[in-house]
Amino acid sequence: MISLNTKGRSLLSVFVLLLSLQITGQDHPGLILTKTGVENIKQHLGAIPIFDKTLAEFKKEVDAEISSGIHVPIPKDMAGGYTHDRHKKNWSILYKSGVLYQLLNDTKYAKYVLDVLKEYAKMYPTLPRHPQERSYARGKIFWQCLNDANWLVYVSQAYDCVYNYISKKDRTYLEKNLFIPYANFLSEETPQFFNRIHNHSTWGNVAVGMIGLAINNDELVDRALYGLKTTSLEPDMKDNDGGFIISEDQKSGFLANLDSPFSPDGYYTEGPYYQRYAMYPFMIFAQALQNKKPDLDIFKYKDGVLIKAVYALLNLTDTQGEFFPLNDAQKGMSYFSKELVSAVDIAYHFGSKDKQLLSIAEKQNRVQLDETGLSIALGIKNKKSIEFQKKSLELKDGADGREGGVGILRSENSQLELIMKYSAQGLSHGHYDKLSFSYYNKGEEVVQDYGLARFVNIEQKNGGGYLKENKTWAKQSIAHNTIIQDQTSHFGGKYEIGSKHHSEKFIFEIENPNFKIVSATEENAYPNTKLHRTMIMIEDEDFENPLLIDIFKVSSNTEHQYDLPYYYRGQIIDTNFNYDISPSLKPLGTKNGYQHLWLQGKGTINDPTKTIQNTWLLANTFYTLSTLSHANDEFLFTRIGANDPNFNLRRDPAFILRKTKAKDNVFISTIEAHGSYNAVTEIAKHSSSSIQEIRKLKIDDDNYVACTIILKNGKQHTFILCTSNNTKSAKHSIKIDAKTLQWTGPYYYFKN
Amino acid sequence: MISLNTKGRSLLSVFVLLLSLQITGQDHPGLILTKTGVENIKQHLGAIPIFDKTLAEFKKEVDAEISSGIHVPIPKDMAGGYTHDRHKKNWSILYKSGVLYQLLNDTKYAKYVLDVLKEYAKMYPTLPRHPQERSYARGKIFWQCLNDANWLVYVSQAYDCVYNYISKKDRTYLEKNLFIPYANFLSEETPQFFNRIHNHSTWGNVAVGMIGLAINNDELVDRALYGLKTTSLEPDMKDNDGGFIISEDQKSGFLANLDSPFSPDGYYTEGPYYQRYAMYPFMIFAQALQNKKPDLDIFKYKDGVLIKAVYALLNLTDTQGEFFPLNDAQKGMSYFSKELVSAVDIAYHFGSKDKQLLSIAEKQNRVQLDETGLSIALGIKNKKSIEFQKKSLELKDGADGREGGVGILRSENSQLELIMKYSAQGLSHGHYDKLSFSYYNKGEEVVQDYGLARFVNIEQKNGGGYLKENKTWAKQSIAHNTIIQDQTSHFGGKYEIGSKHHSEKFIFEIENPNFKIVSATEENAYPNTKLHRTMIMIEDEDFENPLLIDIFKVSSNTEHQYDLPYYYRGQIIDTNFNYDISPSLKPLGTKNGYQHLWLQGKGTINDPTKTIQNTWLLANTFYTLSTLSHANDEFLFTRIGANDPNFNLRRDPAFILRKTKAKDNVFISTIEAHGSYNAVTEIAKHSSSSIQEIRKLKIDDDNYVACTIILKNGKQHTFILCTSNNTKSAKHSIKIDAKTLQWTGPYYYFKN
Repeated sequence: MISLNTKGRSLLSVFVLLLSLQITGQDHPGLILTKTGVENIKQHLGAIPIFDKTLAEFKKEVDAEISSGIHVPIPKDMAGGYTHDRHKKNWSILYKSGVLYQLLNDTKYAKYVLDVLKEYAKMYPTLPRHPQERSYARGKIFWQCLNDANWLVYVSQAYDCVYNYISKKDRTYLEKNLFIPYANFLSEETPQFFNRIHNHSTWGNVAVGMIGLAINNDELVDRALYGLKTTSLEPDMKDNDGGFIISEDQKSGFLANLDSPFSPDGYYTEGPYYQRYAMYPFMIFAQALQNKKPDLDIFKYKDGVLIKAVYALLNLTDTQGEFFPLNDAQKGMSYFSKELVSAVDIAYHFGSKDKQLLSIAEKQNRVQLDETGLSIALGIKNKKSIEFQKKSLELKDGADGREGGVGILRSENSQLELIMKYSAQGLSHGHYDKLSFSYYNKGEEVVQDYGLARFVNIEQKNGGGYLKENKTWAKQSIAHNTIIQDQTSHFGGKYEIGSKHHSEKFIFEIENPNFKIVSATEENAYPNTKLHRTMIMIEDEDFENPLLIDIFKVSSNTEHQYDLPYYYRGQIIDTNFNYDISPSLKPLGTKNGYQHLWLQGKGTINDPTKTIQNTWLLANTFYTLSTLSHANDEFLFTRIGANDPNFNLRRDPAFILRKTKAKDNVFISTIEAHGSYNAVTEIAKHSSSSIQEIRKLKIDDDNYVACTIILKNGKQHTFILCTSNNTKSAKHSIKIDAKTLQWTGPYYYFKN
Repeated sequence: MISLNTKGRSLLSVFVLLLSLQITGQDHPGLILTKTGVENIKQHLGAIPIFDKTLAEFKKEVDAEISSGIHVPIPKDMAGGYTHDRHKKNWSILYKSGVLYQLLNDTKYAKYVLDVLKEYAKMYPTLPRHPQERSYARGKIFWQCLNDANWLVYVSQAYDCVYNYISKKDRTYLEKNLFIPYANFLSEETPQFFNRIHNHSTWGNVAVGMIGLAINNDELVDRALYGLKTTSLEPDMKDNDGGFIISEDQKSGFLANLDSPFSPDGYYTEGPYYQRYAMYPFMIFAQALQNKKPDLDIFKYKDGVLIKAVYALLNLTDTQGEFFPLNDAQKGMSYFSKELVSAVDIAYHFGSKDKQLLSIAEKQNRVQLDETGLSIALGIKNKKSIEFQKKSLELKDGADGREGGVGILRSENSQLELIMKYSAQGLSHGHYDKLSFSYYNKGEEVVQDYGLARFVNIEQKNGGGYLKENKTWAKQSIAHNTIIQDQTSHFGGKYEIGSKHHSEKFIFEIENPNFKIVSATEENAYPNTKLHRTMIMIEDEDFENPLLIDIFKVSSNTEHQYDLPYYYRGQIIDTNFNYDISPSLKPLGTKNGYQHLWLQGKGTINDPTKTIQNTWLLANTFYTLSTLSHANDEFLFTRIGANDPNFNLRRDPAFILRKTKAKDNVFISTIEAHGSYNAVTEIAKHSSSSIQEIRKLKIDDDNYVACTIILKNGKQHTFILCTSNNTKSAKHSIKIDAKTLQWTGPYYYFKN
């Protein structure tokens, strides 16, 4: 037996205390689940339906997986292939298994996590970079580091959950052979992936940060928050999507990725599809930081931008909950995704306990299995839920909110929704579509944005990755509902130029429920050319549904051709002008996306002015595009699909308004939603437009655009816009037809 | 005062009795609503939810209409125009108002009916035939007699309901100025409309019969039942659709229209869309006859064909309740139509009170407001409803069931449904598509039938009538999923020839739930050519979903080109063969429908044999068409839309298998439904085919076709068909690869 003096004894007790802390692990779980959280949840289990249901689903899935054995194959396949899908599944099952261990106290779940992790730890040190060489940042487990980072974000949580179950020896083994090398690989060894302003880096930062918090390694946490201090990256390095690796101000890390791609309104510059994808690491790491480093007060960072971002995302969905597909975006993604389940739960729990979020969670019908999900489940159980009210709103873009934005106009009395884009480029996932718009009715796309050209995770389509048509078609201006000059994309389709510029908001006013307006300008898309689009949603007894007015002014010092497409969806019912159809179809052009459009037919306007109209039917509602045209204007009927050898593109139609030679000009159009068709009763109601004519009013001042919409019932709606001054207090006085009109503010609207 | 003797007194009392009968109207209502029926209903009102709901809807609609005043404009417009729609609305509101008067005892409804009828009676004698001259049988109120007949069918019911409210004088006035001339106009004055075997005539017959029953005019009732005795019709007269006016056996009237277009199975030769349309007059007149002339025992007529017809119709719907669009048929029409509400209610009440019908009524969520609806409402209220089980079944065509038919194969464990057509021509609404098929999954069309080329009641599209593309495209063989020889439609697209022939069932067996088969032959579509198609649905553990095998044998004495289209719906995901895409699109041909197809791309097979495969994605499920091809076979990618100046056609795609020169040949193909895609989780499962190869087995006997489907898992499924003998007891013995196979019956299937 060893004898100790007092000092020795007290040192020993400190040592024992430390040891016991380490062994009993006072701080595990502490990342997402917490010790008190677990106790709290256990008290309610069985009496919180939405939570209990999610837990039962986890259990069923994990039990089936555990009984199928352990599968840790040597990495080999692209997305969609076996090893890829298996490792993806592993991260999910490990995470769920960890949660089940905590909530159900069944050590089989902890043992499973440990056994699988040991297999990874055995394999990891032997792995070179992944054999598939397509990524600018190849991973080890997956073909790209992005997926390796995904793995670690989830597995860190699993490890935290079973930490106390694992012996110190095994922990040391796992951390030394797997977690720390893994974190270093994602960061120091792959700086082009880790040190960017980009959703990829956010995943990388959070992966490193989560494992850092899980194993109490402050160096890793710091690296996650602030990025690598030094790297050997070249300033003009680009990723697979053509985006720059190095940001302008050279900041990096988690906080820099909150500073910069997020605007103060919570809009993420890449667009909602990627914002959704990035929301999980942003929110889950914020939750972990709040639990482990509460002093950082992360949810207050940048005036609470993370919680704002959740509201921005929810407002960026149509009435079915699907995201507006701005920039690269696969259609169908919605707030039913698991990232939004987490985001809504976390925003509710750490935010203001907004009862509107409960209604979204009810629709999602599952929760995150932690204290945030418990909060939601209790809120719903106690019937606190109220309907989420989507708003007409503007979301500014840019780190400081000064780089344009997107404007959403929503109708009060119908389900019509307009979204107009006048944002910055949106990093490497941005499309060249300044001042474009899309239009929805009851969640149906009436005038659509194409989205991306990709079938995510469908192996036969280029391994599930981006298709070449994403660049040749989906990103090009002609693929969007905006102006194209001389058949060339905005900024020449060049990211280097596009990423230097952004559009400018001119007007955004939604205070009057019957007259909402969004107006924006773009001066850099084409040299010496100013684009100015104004869209107005009028709700008036003269119209069955809100009328959309679209005024697109172009000003240039030389003559150009201008195309303005409307990618309508549906079946053409009627037109009021003559056109020829093409006896054989040829592509509309040879490049910039035009090579992908078939020209189906063309009308040339002979009258000096004529209001041309086109009515179509979609999902039992009629729509009419009316547009004021002039002699020699052309109206093209196109369809996507030319030069598409692998049938990668949808065969969707468009109307294209074309002015063949114009310096200063303005496109004035309206879109009506009217009437209905019922295939069961076979009753067609109000299948024709209410509009008789669109008339442009003559004003001897280029700073104004004025038009009157003349209805078949004789009523007239007049709108005048001052395009040079958006000051609200400015007074205007102009003469129209010998009558002087006076008003204050950038526009004037009246009805007679 | 007048003094009478005994005889005089008793004569007087008879007279008074008769008078009182007439005045108190013992037999009104008696047509659809009956006196006892009304009493019965009133006892339950307020306690029969589905009935109460329908009644409330009637009341709301009618009250609004009554307060809007009376509108009986001079007829002027085509379908979709004001006067057309107004008179249509009038018949509906009159009918409903009559019912409301009976059930609610409020005389305002009776008064409204009377007031409106008086307006009609004032106008009717002044009316010439309708000014629109498009119909072969112009009406007076509407552009075609068909709509005039619709009006009278409903208004007869209204008149019966308010009969006792109206003074004798007014009744005499109405009958003399409106109803009797109206009935004579529809029959004697328009025999080409009244005296046919056609849904138009059924409406005409029933209109005349209903008013006959309502005013106790047996002459009209007889005319309705048995047709006009003599007419001045020419034997080769045709209607607007190209159908003959005079039937072969020259029978006419309601009963003749039950004899002939209906098969003993209740299949109506025009197809389900028109059967649905005709069901209302058939069923409502049957109900009236049962009430007023019970001795006729109409529901027993032709072994109960009317009730059988309701079941046939319900079985001719997909899982969403929409009718399979055989022949001229507008998609979207379903058992939610008002005709099917009546049909289901009447079939339940006058049939065997089948509880399965209650489940359809529950989905319809409304009832006919009479005793049949009461029966339904009580059945539902008493929770007697059980789910309607749609069956795999054959519906024979032809008055005696000997003119082919349609075969429906439904999967046991999924929602896959195949319908194959081998019926007669289907009168003037028939399409030239012998042995065609369509294929459904969960109510989605996977391989579609085009349906008709028409936008019913949408005025801008040819007044809502048939478009010329119905003839140039929709009726042509190339518009369907069947064989086309030398780019010519079946029967040369000639109704005179097509209507003389029908296909023949060869096999229809559905007893084995894992192996269902339909096989049929057609020997008259092309001269000296026999077509024989066999389709098999196999449910086996080797396949995620049932596998569809499609064997199409063609035999001719000379060489021809054969095209076999598959109008798939969805996005092409992958192909396993080389093809060229067309740099510019040209029509595939110049006539017979080919002029409407764009050729998007073409592959020519170089290998001696090759199993070519095409995978597509539709509504989150993958599908693969595999087909055994030979050297010089072609595979065409087409899309509808060429030579369509008014954009009347949908831009739908097809794969076309082409054998450029063949005498005897066989197309052997399979269609798999496999895997899934989820746009929210972005997970793709099982996106590739399970089939490795389709192999044709060599047999030295032209009477047999044999093939083996070789799966990627090594399993083999072999099917042998004897094409010359469908006798179940026939014994067969053939040699394949030196192995002798022996079996009984027309086919042999095994797996190894």
